[in-house]
Amino acid sequence: MSVSTLATAPSVCAPLPVLGRDVTVPLVTGGEVTYAALDYAASAPALQRVWDDVAAYAPYYGSVHRGAGYLSQLSTDLFENARRTVAEFLDCRAGDQVVFTRSTTDSLNLLAAALPAGCQVFVFETEHHAALLPWRGARVTYLDAPSSPRQAVEMLERALADRDPYGPALVCVTGASNVTGELWPVRELAAAAHAHGARIVLDAAQLAPHHPVSVADLDVDWVAFSGHKLYAPFGSGVLAGRADWLREAEPYLAGGGASRKVSRREDGGVDVEWHESAARHEAGSPNVIGAYAIASACKALTEAGFDTLVAREQYLIEKVRAGLAEVPEVRILSLFGDDAPRVGVLSFVVDGWNSSHFAAALSAEYGIGVRDGLFCAHPLVRTLLGSDPQTQGECGAPEAAPGERSLNAIRVSFGAGTPDEHVERFLRAVKELVADGARWSYRTEDGRCVPDTSA
Amino acid sequence: MSVSTLATAPSVCAPLPVLGRDVTVPLVTGGEVTYAALDYAASAPALQRVWDDVAAYAPYYGSVHRGAGYLSQLSTDLFENARRTVAEFLDCRAGDQVVFTRSTTDSLNLLAAALPAGCQVFVFETEHHAALLPWRGARVTYLDAPSSPRQAVEMLERALADRDPYGPALVCVTGASNVTGELWPVRELAAAAHAHGARIVLDAAQLAPHHPVSVADLDVDWVAFSGHKLYAPFGSGVLAGRADWLREAEPYLAGGGASRKVSRREDGGVDVEWHESAARHEAGSPNVIGAYAIASACKALTEAGFDTLVAREQYLIEKVRAGLAEVPEVRILSLFGDDAPRVGVLSFVVDGWNSSHFAAALSAEYGIGVRDGLFCAHPLVRTLLGSDPQTQGECGAPEAAPGERSLNAIRVSFGAGTPDEHVERFLRAVKELVADGARWSYRTEDGRCVPDTSA
Repeated sequence: MSVSTLATAPSVCAPLPVLGRDVTVPLVTGGEVTYAALDYAASAPALQRVWDDVAAYAPYYGSVHRGAGYLSQLSTDLFENARRTVAEFLDCRAGDQVVFTRSTTDSLNLLAAALPAGCQVFVFETEHHAALLPWRGARVTYLDAPSSPRQAVEMLERALADRDPYGPALVCVTGASNVTGELWPVRELAAAAHAHGARIVLDAAQLAPHHPVSVADLDVDWVAFSGHKLYAPFGSGVLAGRADWLREAEPYLAGGGASRKVSRREDGGVDVEWHESAARHEAGSPNVIGAYAIASACKALTEAGFDTLVAREQYLIEKVRAGLAEVPEVRILSLFGDDAPRVGVLSFVVDGWNSSHFAAALSAEYGIGVRDGLFCAHPLVRTLLGSDPQTQGECGAPEAAPGERSLNAIRVSFGAGTPDEHVERFLRAVKELVADGARWSYRTEDGRCVPDTSA
Repeated sequence: MSVSTLATAPSVCAPLPVLGRDVTVPLVTGGEVTYAALDYAASAPALQRVWDDVAAYAPYYGSVHRGAGYLSQLSTDLFENARRTVAEFLDCRAGDQVVFTRSTTDSLNLLAAALPAGCQVFVFETEHHAALLPWRGARVTYLDAPSSPRQAVEMLERALADRDPYGPALVCVTGASNVTGELWPVRELAAAAHAHGARIVLDAAQLAPHHPVSVADLDVDWVAFSGHKLYAPFGSGVLAGRADWLREAEPYLAGGGASRKVSRREDGGVDVEWHESAARHEAGSPNVIGAYAIASACKALTEAGFDTLVAREQYLIEKVRAGLAEVPEVRILSLFGDDAPRVGVLSFVVDGWNSSHFAAALSAEYGIGVRDGLFCAHPLVRTLLGSDPQTQGECGAPEAAPGERSLNAIRVSFGAGTPDEHVERFLRAVKELVADGARWSYRTEDGRCVPDTSA
């Protein structure tokens, strides 16, 4: 199914129930409203189904892998079944490994530690820092921001063809931008990588919660995602894909669970035999609840019908984009243009507004949670804003005072749990703030833009 | 308060309520019993209080550090407050950092990655693999198993004095053995380390859940522990202590959250400024629920009165030891002898029994969950068993068939949630199994010793 054909589909189903859907928050202007969580791209609320599964399991929690007791064996089975559920969710190939990590960041750092000797890395500057920075032992080629998916493929092909020496290489690419929400041409980039003897890892942190991912169909070598963006915020993430590099690499963490056998040598040293399975990179007691929560979320999304969820999200995206288009002061950040297929992640700036100020007013006066900042994708946001990188502040910390011209942006993001009312309230708030200004005054405190309640 | 003076104290308080206290499991011999979780040393059940706190917070979960919304700010405050609660729980010094990791294993791997150049590591062979193996970039001196706490201090002093070159050094030592439960002379080892210009990290995985830990009083430089052994099994751990090495080290993970500023250079490369706070080593979205759960457990243990919990646990320990002493076939594994102070962790072998077989019978016929194996401390268990390391199997996997002489051991462990009935049932089971044998037959399946239900 093509995402773009769904862009005008009606709202075909109710949002999936999530924790916090009834939480109310105080407004600085008085009264309370239900909280509109529109920061899914950072952390999504837990699906009610995920919470219920975790709550049902929690009394049965036990040590995995190594315990003789009934609950230990039940927990071990649950943990290993979670691996299989994730493999099915990602449509992995036979022989692929699913390693439980703590996040996408952790997954990509693990892969970075598993690169073969001399492996070069190719990454667009438009990536999230988690995909941009982990490749510390390797020679990294940073590619400039492309202006279209087609140009991205051409740039990658050229860079890979020109690499010297023509040795092992890894391409790391996002499935959906955490800033613009735009989809990247993953299948085409994977084909380009393979045509040039390179491998590719898909950063699916923003894609997997919003869109089905098929490792086999996209033909990517690895995929990484986070539980906390996939409605399962219990400290787990996933790296799934080819076993060979992982099996041949030094264990990511050294410790129990990863070690098969440890013995003293005659000379006083220590010999270690490491596991070759996923356990090789999972030293320490696994986060069983975190892994189980991810598996629960995978099942819930699949059973709800991912196509239906995609259709509903596309409807919300069009609603937000159409609403923002009515406000000339709003500029939506985009790399690939209006027609690019996208997920429910959208960043913008408002003419004459400091983004932190705007985001603070959305929170304090409307009970809406968005994010302002550079979204841990500094080079991309700077390119999109066209502003001087030297004047940018911390990741997510509003440094410019209210009223100053913003060098940051505002991001609104949503997903399977978002009711229509949240995006409707958001659009109303944007229009009111732009037309009438904030009703309250704000100041910067501990790096946050907050309502000034000292008056 | 001295642990040894409490050894004969009566059971002075009820166990703390834990999840799973009412869970029943089937017996192979028919019927059901409440599950006796006696594998706390691997993973302890969640305190009911911890679960209740997590359940109350979960609907308010939001992205930390970077969100402008109400729940994001609430979650950020909760996360940073959790850091302060842990610092108080550990009685940290002013200026110490608390880094949230995923486990003790992760904490020690983080410290290993932060060693200054040329740092040598000194570690007893008796450590858990998590403390034995992470020091991959350093020259490691493995010290033989000492036969007394005093000898441990003498051995360490000698090794540190003799080190060549006399450069930076780190000692890693457990607070309480995960095999014998015996306490190590941490304060004395810390003094020895400091007298010889070395630093020391305390592996408190088995100590912190059972005994107050004061970083300031013990004068250790760092301490590491795991949430899942401290009644908070939500995928988090802690490394707390001196900020200097951590601040000067490369970030443990590279990604968002750890990076303050990222910018392209003229030559196409990327420059990164990293944070100097704990965030430097916490790249990726933090596990807020995991950190909050640990803080909740710290508060619960403190508020319950740690001295009272220690007294109750000592009573249970003496009960178990006295009961096992009545069974001549049982040999308790010990490095420091009968009088050594200890926590509720005890390993033993039973003459004529394969340990896996024995543990399987405890589970299947009595509903008791213990662990059999080498407990991720292979060199120590081999030393204690006096057996040939070449014939040992996987960590925790029973490889010898039922009836063969065991090369593994059985570990029983308990804590704040253990009712008297669990240890009483355990002692009755040990006596019955030794006297009458198992009532069922067992076989090895997928590396587990399980009841043979094929007959």
